[in-house]
Amino acid sequence: MPEDLQPNSLSQRIRLTVAYDGRPYQGWQSQPSGHTIQDHLERALEAVAGQRLRVHASGRTDSGVHALGQTIHFDAPSDSRLQPKNWLAALNSHLPRTIRIMDAERRGPDFHARFSAQAKTYRYRLYVGHVLPPQLAGMAWHLREMPELSTLLATSDLLLGRHDFSAFAANRSDGSDAAHGSGQNERTISSARWLIGDEGLFFDITGDGFLYRMVRLIVGALLRTAEGQMDVAEFGALLDQPRDRPLKKSPFCAPADGLTLLRVTY
Amino acid sequence: MPEDLQPNSLSQRIRLTVAYDGRPYQGWQSQPSGHTIQDHLERALEAVAGQRLRVHASGRTDSGVHALGQTIHFDAPSDSRLQPKNWLAALNSHLPRTIRIMDAERRGPDFHARFSAQAKTYRYRLYVGHVLPPQLAGMAWHLREMPELSTLLATSDLLLGRHDFSAFAANRSDGSDAAHGSGQNERTISSARWLIGDEGLFFDITGDGFLYRMVRLIVGALLRTAEGQMDVAEFGALLDQPRDRPLKKSPFCAPADGLTLLRVTY
Repeated sequence: MPEDLQPNSLSQRIRLTVAYDGRPYQGWQSQPSGHTIQDHLERALEAVAGQRLRVHASGRTDSGVHALGQTIHFDAPSDSRLQPKNWLAALNSHLPRTIRIMDAERRGPDFHARFSAQAKTYRYRLYVGHVLPPQLAGMAWHLREMPELSTLLATSDLLLGRHDFSAFAANRSDGSDAAHGSGQNERTISSARWLIGDEGLFFDITGDGFLYRMVRLIVGALLRTAEGQMDVAEFGALLDQPRDRPLKKSPFCAPADGLTLLRVTY
Repeated sequence: MPEDLQPNSLSQRIRLTVAYDGRPYQGWQSQPSGHTIQDHLERALEAVAGQRLRVHASGRTDSGVHALGQTIHFDAPSDSRLQPKNWLAALNSHLPRTIRIMDAERRGPDFHARFSAQAKTYRYRLYVGHVLPPQLAGMAWHLREMPELSTLLATSDLLLGRHDFSAFAANRSDGSDAAHGSGQNERTISSARWLIGDEGLFFDITGDGFLYRMVRLIVGALLRTAEGQMDVAEFGALLDQPRDRPLKKSPFCAPADGLTLLRVTY
């Protein structure tokens, strides 16, 4: 195959693990304002590489959502002599302290941050108490009263396995949603568990993919159930709804503050 | 005694426990800029009480220093019908989310946040790793290599008991320091211990009082010792220096980022 049909064959694909505090930013996806994580990363890459390079993420995160293990890739210019560890150090020196490259590795040309992803794990944090401590402002959903834990655990178990999650998908403003009934909203949840400690309540969920705002809509409905505003059967009926009837949506989206993309598995 | 000599006899003294994220503020003490914790608290009090009220803290904290249990008091107007829990809720509704009243209690007129304090506990946080995670930016001192822990523990033990800490006092710009040799720089440290966990290294120190920047100057010297730039005997010689010789100062002040005032005991 002639080389000009493979313009990237000599370029080097670099995979980066990125952590960010979502509070100061307008989410992942590039915006005209320039105040997104992608904008900051692409400006840092341009400063280091001397040319504009596009980054590809495992997926978007909304405004105010955090990440410990967002994964992205980009193609370094073929004449670049920078090793992955040099990219890491150089990019961090051009990024704000609330966006950090935690790891960098070379990958083959078949690797794609979004399409090669096998699973993602999100963590949702809740703080239960009278006053939200200042260091958790923007980092947790503040509840005044402890939810009914046994209900929370029992309801979360319903999520496991393969289900149609159309009820737990917000409409994207760009209309890129899959329609209810198309089968495109099926996802497999391999783990959904609660961790309870001095620091609050944590909900960790792992799946082969997540619809738009799916974790926040799940957490919102779980808490409504634990607070007795919905019963466990009603929660269960939100999953796998018959395709020939109007869709009943999850009633509540938990705030962005508590959500962190923990890791992406390839 | 005639009542006009006790203008506060009918006022109600309220003690508040205050937590703050020090990152956005220029320290505790009121400044013309208005960007200090005290300024925010006094503005919130004025909004709630309808008059200017002065707050008194257990002590100042520097720019960038955090608190979980700073303690303050103020005198509520004698005609105020607000209970402590009402002050807490009303003040929090007028404060930024990074300053929170965590607790409020009525106290007798003899209570004074500064002069009644028996002990204070500070925590200093260090993070050891290649890249400082974004959520710890401004919240920990970033070290690339793990310090020699046995040296750290052995050196910290030298702090226990009553000592002259003149070597661990920065000069205040307002000249309010006690002079070396006056005996006024003696303090008693009742506990100094290291906690080591996944989240990093924590140094907790409790004493009957602390000189200006004393904890940061202690942590700076402890780390220099653990890194081998000073030996344990040199560290020990900084304590209780002979009053007839020039003072040798601690060589390094650890950054404000890692320091939190944990609690004040009365």
